[in-house]
Amino acid sequence: MKNIAVYPGSFDPVTRGHIDIIDRSYKLFDEIHIVTFINSSKSYTFSEDERVELIKKSLIEKNIPMENIIVTHSRDLVANYCKNVNASAVIKGIRNTTDFDNEFSQALLNRELVGIETLLMPTSTIFSFVSSTFVKNVAEYDGNISDFVTDAVENALKIKNADKPLVC
Amino acid sequence: MKNIAVYPGSFDPVTRGHIDIIDRSYKLFDEIHIVTFINSSKSYTFSEDERVELIKKSLIEKNIPMENIIVTHSRDLVANYCKNVNASAVIKGIRNTTDFDNEFSQALLNRELVGIETLLMPTSTIFSFVSSTFVKNVAEYDGNISDFVTDAVENALKIKNADKPLVC
Amino acid sequence: MKNIAVYPGSFDPVTRGHIDIIDRSYKLFDEIHIVTFINSSKSYTFSEDERVELIKKSLIEKNIPMENIIVTHSRDLVANYCKNVNASAVIKGIRNTTDFDNEFSQALLNRELVGIETLLMPTSTIFSFVSSTFVKNVAEYDGNISDFVTDAVENALKIKNADKPLVC
Amino acid sequence: MKNIAVYPGSFDPVTRGHIDIIDRSYKLFDEIHIVTFINSSKSYTFSEDERVELIKKSLIEKNIPMENIIVTHSRDLVANYCKNVNASAVIKGIRNTTDFDNEFSQALLNRELVGIETLLMPTSTIFSFVSSTFVKNVAEYDGNISDFVTDAVENALKIKNADKPLVC
Amino acid sequence: MKNIAVYPGSFDPVTRGHIDIIDRSYKLFDEIHIVTFINSSKSYTFSEDERVELIKKSLIEKNIPMENIIVTHSRDLVANYCKNVNASAVIKGIRNTTDFDNEFSQALLNRELVGIETLLMPTSTIFSFVSSTFVKNVAEYDGNISDFVTDAVENALKIKNADKPLVC
Amino acid sequence: MKNIAVYPGSFDPVTRGHIDIIDRSYKLFDEIHIVTFINSSKSYTFSEDERVELIKKSLIEKNIPMENIIVTHSRDLVANYCKNVNASAVIKGIRNTTDFDNEFSQALLNRELVGIETLLMPTSTIFSFVSSTFVKNVAEYDGNISDFVTDAVENALKIKNADKPLVC
Repeated sequence: MKNIAVYPGSFDPVTRGHIDIIDRSYKLFDEIHIVTFINSSKSYTFSEDERVELIKKSLIEKNIPMENIIVTHSRDLVANYCKNVNASAVIKGIRNTTDFDNEFSQALLNRELVGIETLLMPTSTIFSFVSSTFVKNVAEYDGNISDFVTDAVENALKIKNADKPLVC
Repeated sequence: MKNIAVYPGSFDPVTRGHIDIIDRSYKLFDEIHIVTFINSSKSYTFSEDERVELIKKSLIEKNIPMENIIVTHSRDLVANYCKNVNASAVIKGIRNTTDFDNEFSQALLNRELVGIETLLMPTSTIFSFVSSTFVKNVAEYDGNISDFVTDAVENALKIKNADKPLVC
Repeated sequence: MKNIAVYPGSFDPVTRGHIDIIDRSYKLFDEIHIVTFINSSKSYTFSEDERVELIKKSLIEKNIPMENIIVTHSRDLVANYCKNVNASAVIKGIRNTTDFDNEFSQALLNRELVGIETLLMPTSTIFSFVSSTFVKNVAEYDGNISDFVTDAVENALKIKNADKPLVC
Repeated sequence: MKNIAVYPGSFDPVTRGHIDIIDRSYKLFDEIHIVTFINSSKSYTFSEDERVELIKKSLIEKNIPMENIIVTHSRDLVANYCKNVNASAVIKGIRNTTDFDNEFSQALLNRELVGIETLLMPTSTIFSFVSSTFVKNVAEYDGNISDFVTDAVENALKIKNADKPLVC
Repeated sequence: MKNIAVYPGSFDPVTRGHIDIIDRSYKLFDEIHIVTFINSSKSYTFSEDERVELIKKSLIEKNIPMENIIVTHSRDLVANYCKNVNASAVIKGIRNTTDFDNEFSQALLNRELVGIETLLMPTSTIFSFVSSTFVKNVAEYDGNISDFVTDAVENALKIKNADKPLVC
Repeated sequence: MKNIAVYPGSFDPVTRGHIDIIDRSYKLFDEIHIVTFINSSKSYTFSEDERVELIKKSLIEKNIPMENIIVTHSRDLVANYCKNVNASAVIKGIRNTTDFDNEFSQALLNRELVGIETLLMPTSTIFSFVSSTFVKNVAEYDGNISDFVTDAVENALKIKNADKPLVC
């Protein structure tokens, strides 16, 4: 039986912190699904297709072999997606205790719903403060984000910000 | 003098975690008030009347005796409500350190405002990941929520979701 | 039926923080037991009798009425003590998330063992940093501890330290 | 070389907790800049000019000498502002672990962006639960906020609330 | 290449919480090593051989298939052990933020030392408060520990406590 | 008036994490005192003189200018030492929420005792998991500690471990 892991997230957009988690975890499983989910109460900077595309481009840019990696989006519950693809584990990166509290509750919920396990992976120290929100905030002010995202994402954010009316 | 406790919350909607707190705390006091409050910066799925109604129905469903339990809603500050009914304590359930930080600050504020004490009660382990937000999110995708809410709430959520336009 | 609470601790020695918890909680119950317990893996500065004595003297010094307060020591488990006296709740003060993690686990254990509830009470802000360990450490260097402990405890610590060989 | 610190925030509005941080930190530096920043995803109760004005009035009310204190607003990144004024440190108050997680990430980001250090200062215990959000919430219900904000801010909030349509 | 995980610990003695982690994780890997380590600054209730023996007996008692499970002890660093057996991951259970802080630091250290990844697994809610220390403490007072440990461990603790001089 | 900071600690032994805090903070003050303190309930690997010596050697090794840096030891309370040298601030590094809880309480105590402020400085990410205890533990097993301590400390630990009887 194949050992399948699911790495769910907003990935709005994917950061070097996310890519690092993928790079460190894909060897531990026969197949890994990187899946963008949507939360009806949030609004997103990038569309689902754009988010998937930026993940793919970032993985290629970082020379991560794509054979056993599936990148896709879903409008279902994380738990349901996992059940449908017969996954044995959810992978999540954690940076601090606030992340931990969130992921802990989410992990218990998913286990209750479909019996899926969650494996929490400490973020690499150099990415411990990187989040999609921080990256977008810095990009909005033309700050340098090349340490936090791949070139593909940096360019995509430049285009988004060029289209946007100025703050104030 | 009667020993009165107030259990404040959004209860949007009430979960089995909330009911568990009520079930464990009502015997410790002569009277307990379960009160839905509103926060002008939040939007709610259920109206105040609906939330009160669902609490009442859930208590009956769980066979909790209603003699010394008052279920109501308020548009005042929690602190003011407590003072008006001469309460000696606020009751709150806590699941993790994020809850703890929030409730700790709120407890100190309420004590400063009207001298009321707050008693924090650890959530039962089996409900430690249950929140109104999680429940609504699962229900939105037709996930099974019967372990997390009473039948009354499950039905009410089904009706709400049937009325709602589809996500996307 | 009498509503009995147990406030367990090392109380080695009792601080103004502990007294504050007693002062704020004794009115919420018909009877409150303040009980010093021993942990076989710890060593104590004061004997069980001394610790009980210092609690009693401190309560008198602070004019807290003793009618419904029992101060005693026990060599049993907290859970067993509670069951034996028919207590309905354990009271504990909490200062921060480290306290919270400890008391949360202990509360769940005690509930599992004998069905007793635990009510966690936020420490008053002015005592949020006071602990028996801090007090003893400051006293060892002849620092001023009168804001942190009653006169009875301050004197008892002076005598203890006079008897002790100098640090180094 | 002058030792310059920047104290950034929303200050919407400034509280006695903020003023306390300023009062305790301005002596440690040759110059301190108190700067209101804006976050394009938040909405504010007070305009940038009002927030700056309320900080100035509050400092005067508390008799804090203004010689080496600059109060201003910025629409840049905190990191960029610091670099532009040649600051050697960012000052932030912290109340609890949730604050800590936020400020820790922000501190690491700012250091990465422009090499600026962040010094975290524990809030005074008596203000440990005071936040702009709490203050506005209490004011909305005509609660007494004079322990939490200066007279200038109290009056400004009264005027704001008089202008506002009633909650529901 | 075989995917090997190491589950390190004191296991002094193994609890149902540990067994639960093993039961949930062994299917995710081709081989799992459960290894008791020693910390020269700690003293232990059970010898290394006894701890290994109790893990084995507990796994059999719980009908966990032993084909791909190795139970052993080591006097090396966790990181070195992992490198020697060519492990790809360390598995650890976490119950709360205190656990998280410890395991996070340990995970970063091990990764720095030998490049090994650590996967943190949330403890099942029903075991969230169970620790070897709690279990030994309850057993010392003849409390009922059958919900927390296997029969093998319960008996072993009874024998240990019978041999021990009474507390006080 | 000179702006003096005190950086207190066990420094048993000093790590690259400590040196990093010194390197980042000494420019913010006119004078910085690095002071090893003793806690009568702890036992130390290095004597007070050795610890002071290793700090000095490490600073020289890292080319940190010593003009305004005083390295010494004290057997007084941190608060008293600060008062005696007319310090305006205590500096402490923090790595996570457990550190934060400890330092927060200590900071409030020191402020209460002698009015001294404490400035908490986030540890650099690359040292976020480094502690004296970890370093000694790794050294005990001949692990490579050169990323965590200076050459001076590495050599001193080798000599200590050579003198020590083997573990077990």
